[in-house]
Amino acid sequence: MKVNGRSYRAIWMEDDQVFMIDQQQLPFRFEIVSTNHYLQTCGRIKDMTIRGAGTIGAVAGFAMAQAFTELRKTPGGSLDSLLKAKKDIENTRPTARDLFYAVERVFTAGYKAFLNVGLDEACLQAVMESQNIANQYVEFSEKIGQYGKALIKDHCNILTHCNAGWLALVDYGSALSPVFLAHREGKKVHVWVDETRPRSQGARLTAWELKQEDIPHTIIADNAAGLLMSQRKADLVITGADRIALNGDTANKIGTLEKAVLAKEYNIPFYVAAPSSTFDKNCPTGKDIIIEERSEDEIHQLQGIDRDNVIREIRVTNPGSLAYNPAFDVTPARFISGYITEKGIINGNDPYNILASNH
Amino acid sequence: MKVNGRSYRAIWMEDDQVFMIDQQQLPFRFEIVSTNHYLQTCGRIKDMTIRGAGTIGAVAGFAMAQAFTELRKTPGGSLDSLLKAKKDIENTRPTARDLFYAVERVFTAGYKAFLNVGLDEACLQAVMESQNIANQYVEFSEKIGQYGKALIKDHCNILTHCNAGWLALVDYGSALSPVFLAHREGKKVHVWVDETRPRSQGARLTAWELKQEDIPHTIIADNAAGLLMSQRKADLVITGADRIALNGDTANKIGTLEKAVLAKEYNIPFYVAAPSSTFDKNCPTGKDIIIEERSEDEIHQLQGIDRDNVIREIRVTNPGSLAYNPAFDVTPARFISGYITEKGIINGNDPYNILASNH
Repeated sequence: MKVNGRSYRAIWMEDDQVFMIDQQQLPFRFEIVSTNHYLQTCGRIKDMTIRGAGTIGAVAGFAMAQAFTELRKTPGGSLDSLLKAKKDIENTRPTARDLFYAVERVFTAGYKAFLNVGLDEACLQAVMESQNIANQYVEFSEKIGQYGKALIKDHCNILTHCNAGWLALVDYGSALSPVFLAHREGKKVHVWVDETRPRSQGARLTAWELKQEDIPHTIIADNAAGLLMSQRKADLVITGADRIALNGDTANKIGTLEKAVLAKEYNIPFYVAAPSSTFDKNCPTGKDIIIEERSEDEIHQLQGIDRDNVIREIRVTNPGSLAYNPAFDVTPARFISGYITEKGIINGNDPYNILASNH
Repeated sequence: MKVNGRSYRAIWMEDDQVFMIDQQQLPFRFEIVSTNHYLQTCGRIKDMTIRGAGTIGAVAGFAMAQAFTELRKTPGGSLDSLLKAKKDIENTRPTARDLFYAVERVFTAGYKAFLNVGLDEACLQAVMESQNIANQYVEFSEKIGQYGKALIKDHCNILTHCNAGWLALVDYGSALSPVFLAHREGKKVHVWVDETRPRSQGARLTAWELKQEDIPHTIIADNAAGLLMSQRKADLVITGADRIALNGDTANKIGTLEKAVLAKEYNIPFYVAAPSSTFDKNCPTGKDIIIEERSEDEIHQLQGIDRDNVIREIRVTNPGSLAYNPAFDVTPARFISGYITEKGIINGNDPYNILASNH
């Protein structure tokens, strides 16, 4: 998607070099960082230079490919180093499903080629497979947009929570992909952007993505979504998903449940957009999803720019008070109108359809 | 209530001097400011040194009393100056009901005494009436607490939104008064404190009040309230109110509606605590309440302290994106379990009771 009028992906690899838009610096600085060694790449996953399920997965795949090419450069390097690299990459964000999936795919492709042909071929196959994975995310994202845009009528007001845009999914995104494509088709759209405390991915990343694409949008405090829905100022809610259980219960950024319950109350369609890989066949219902608790400092401390454009961090809460910071909540399937996937739109409350889509 | 172990009111008057805890500096600095002239006091109402319906009302009453005593000190001062003062005070926060109520009461008391006796008596009566008003807020707040504490069982987890504590109502507060009194009785309570974006009155003022009273509490992002309710980690929701229509629809800080809809969904009692003066007999339903829109900068800019304890303001949203900042929302009566007033607890969905209480 566009940044300053030029097309970018959130991440990409050229030769052994992995490039990433530094999401930690956004929206205040647009900076591209690069890494030449898988351990550097691991560091970037860990420090959240990049985030978002698909982007993490693709970068993890690139990191695994880097480990193969490094092995070739290292005199006396052994296959053990590949297994160590695999472990290292998997340990960067141990709750990210896509990461394991991508690392496994690249490792397997490279390892097979090594056994059948040799190390040069292994490197080639690992790199190709990692590029395939990144391309597949882009392809799926675009398809999500193609299917989802049918839900967006001209002059539609869409409300979204957190960032499920192209930064999170290599390109296009999940929740935002239908918005981007509807807008490119010439439909008039306007997006209500939930700030999404505590990490403010809405106010920072979603707003930045929409601004770069010249899509009309307005940031709101998360608290204002209910009022807008009660006033019918939102026609449609679309969010992303971190994990979807087989009965359709959906884990996503904290606050998603609130929007879903409100949307139901005010008869506003509530859609979850995600590639089918987000459906977890080992997870029967939302009760089986463990909710990550993150540092309370994310509530207390906020980063931004001062008047002189210097990035600063300040404490915004009562010193001495504690905070509780669950990162996700689980929205029961009964609040969800449907799921926008790369295979089409799946009706909510239809777990058999969801199950069937997971192959 | 307590600050650093000592008892305070949010505001008070000694002779002609009005004292206020500077709520703009909280929770980072505890500072008391004072004014000697009604125009200074108007400035403090305008710049939000103090906020909260009752506190604004009481300070406005004090300002009106100051205008009387100033007239006595001014050679050649005329009664016109009192009318001008009344207008000046009323113009500081034109949507604050309590302000008009208090100014009217003090003006009338002073003016009658002037006509019947003379200026000295007028000053005396104006000062007495303004002290009566402040004392009445305290009395009503305490009664709200006495009635409301019956709702709080031992080991209760109460969720509250915004600040409806003693800073907002001279002493005790509305939503927090039952909590303070239950805690003083020895009940074990814990309060989930909604941060309350955009102005963060929960994370700043409510958390500060609770900390000063040693009441266990935890700040959460507004987004997390739904999860807590879905997990039954909140037993009871109590909020304040800015205005209550005759059918029970309640205007309160933006986000209150969201909590009320969620509480209904998860069968958690949702109470509104407010003195009966908050019921507006000229307002039939919530549809008649106009919602104030405030500056979008409240979404973009945040104030806090840096590591060196310096108060700073930073921008936390994407530069160039717009924001929308409605200050209140309206919660329909059907989501409200009841109203805790100084006259007792009024059952929700019972507009006749509410009407009857308004006298």
